[in-house]
Amino acid sequence: MEKTLGLHILADLYGVDFEKIDHVEDVKALLEGAVKYANLSKLSSHFHQFNPHGATGVILLEESHISIHTWPEHGYAAIDVYTCGGKEKTFKAMEYIIKTLKPKRIDEKIAERGVVPVNPEGVNIEKMQLAQV
Amino acid sequence: MEKTLGLHILADLYGVDFEKIDHVEDVKALLEGAVKYANLSKLSSHFHQFNPHGATGVILLEESHISIHTWPEHGYAAIDVYTCGGKEKTFKAMEYIIKTLKPKRIDEKIAERGVVPVNPEGVNIEKMQLAQV
Repeated sequence: MEKTLGLHILADLYGVDFEKIDHVEDVKALLEGAVKYANLSKLSSHFHQFNPHGATGVILLEESHISIHTWPEHGYAAIDVYTCGGKEKTFKAMEYIIKTLKPKRIDEKIAERGVVPVNPEGVNIEKMQLAQV
Repeated sequence: MEKTLGLHILADLYGVDFEKIDHVEDVKALLEGAVKYANLSKLSSHFHQFNPHGATGVILLEESHISIHTWPEHGYAAIDVYTCGGKEKTFKAMEYIIKTLKPKRIDEKIAERGVVPVNPEGVNIEKMQLAQV
């Protein structure tokens, strides 16, 4: 028996309005909004304004992280939503970001992160129980 | 003419020694070491200790970010190295992390992030020059 620890969505958003992704305060509000909308648990958030254009930032979560890097001169934003503990929250956070930025085109990839035994000791519990019968 | 803005390596490391990824100070030293080894430019770094086990953290870079999330009870660490401006640094940073953690198995994915026109205005410079001849 195995389980997957996390789900990671990588989204490249093209054709985003310059003004929506140029300033760090807007980019921060975007990610903070996504965390609230998806009911994720924020540990801390960190953002930086580039000159002349664009911003970068991450929110560390109990469930992993959300990050953004923007190139407003290209109308481009790179978004990562990587969460453990429920796929629904991952998709909800990305849904919020896409609805807010309204990109003309999205290139999205999904990666399952961390496939591990259900029992971390690696012991097959089902077989053990069977042996006792 | 197009160019790719960034290269993103997602690495799931399995079979990592518990002690190497349990404490936030070790995890922080690992990522700080990778940034120095690859000659990347740190903006800021942020880490968090989980209880009873594991840590999470990110270093924001001029070139994007490096992140880590660990589950020492599974011998598992999720690493992201995402940089723009030169593929060599991306691979060097990941090389440092893998050499330090010595995982028994690696599941690695590589994503090119952000394919944009060389000229952000979308004007074909070659054609313009040709027209002037």
